[in-house]
Amino acid sequence: MSPKPVNPLCPFCSDSIKESVFYETRDFLALYNIAPILPGHSLVIPRKHQTSIIDLSDEGLFNFFSTAKYALLILMKVFQTKAFDWSIQEKPEAGQTIEHLHLHIVPRIKNDLIQPGHWYPLIHRNDMEIMDSENRPRLGAQELKVIVEKLKEAGRQAAL
Amino acid sequence: MSPKPVNPLCPFCSDSIKESVFYETRDFLALYNIAPILPGHSLVIPRKHQTSIIDLSDEGLFNFFSTAKYALLILMKVFQTKAFDWSIQEKPEAGQTIEHLHLHIVPRIKNDLIQPGHWYPLIHRNDMEIMDSENRPRLGAQELKVIVEKLKEAGRQAAL
Repeated sequence: MSPKPVNPLCPFCSDSIKESVFYETRDFLALYNIAPILPGHSLVIPRKHQTSIIDLSDEGLFNFFSTAKYALLILMKVFQTKAFDWSIQEKPEAGQTIEHLHLHIVPRIKNDLIQPGHWYPLIHRNDMEIMDSENRPRLGAQELKVIVEKLKEAGRQAAL
Repeated sequence: MSPKPVNPLCPFCSDSIKESVFYETRDFLALYNIAPILPGHSLVIPRKHQTSIIDLSDEGLFNFFSTAKYALLILMKVFQTKAFDWSIQEKPEAGQTIEHLHLHIVPRIKNDLIQPGHWYPLIHRNDMEIMDSENRPRLGAQELKVIVEKLKEAGRQAAL
């Protein structure tokens, strides 16, 4: 299925995400979450409004997870941990609130949450908050810029 | 890093998982969870005792997610839904309890849980139960056999 290039109602198709992007490949972007549930919480998305993993070609599947792996290496380096959660939800029945395909990457450190498993309810609430522009605990523009620059710099270094 | 072929203490390296496998490729297995949190809850794992995504080669990364995508298509067909959760945890700080790399696939249907996001705490408890042989709410052998056969049959059919 050929995806629509842009869905004007989709927050991940909006130009405003550009300031959050810290790593990009031809068809995919890694961006810092504007409202991270924990330090380092990022997303990997297709540039186009693609909604499902199952619509990705073999090449698309490889490039999506290859972009995600490189983004993960950058995050591990900058946030100084080898622990992380990866998660994808598809369709509202599974807890998805933004239809544009997105993989959450959440770097983890010891005792960052009361129980390690508490990250998921936070992600779900986070998605709802991105949808609801009235209730969005965003990072400040300067704060976001500093962190994105740091991640870009780590990505430019040859040896992760 | 070359993985150890087998870790004798690892439940995913045990021969007993063979009866749960419904789809396999050269280096990866898709298996039905012996204690599913919801109908269809399955796992995709490397055959060898590989512990991290970041240790997979480009070919390994593609084959892992390609195996997972095909397993997902089988599960979607048999469990009649396009909704699902995918999740990977690495290291105890992230909620991982079994060190062998594993991707959870959980097909979802409307109202299967009180809140869509409740799947994750169940997965975490599920991992603990697999580790704890005294407290393991397993499927019966016959029940597992029926479901694995149905999944294998769906996988053999050309058009998913």
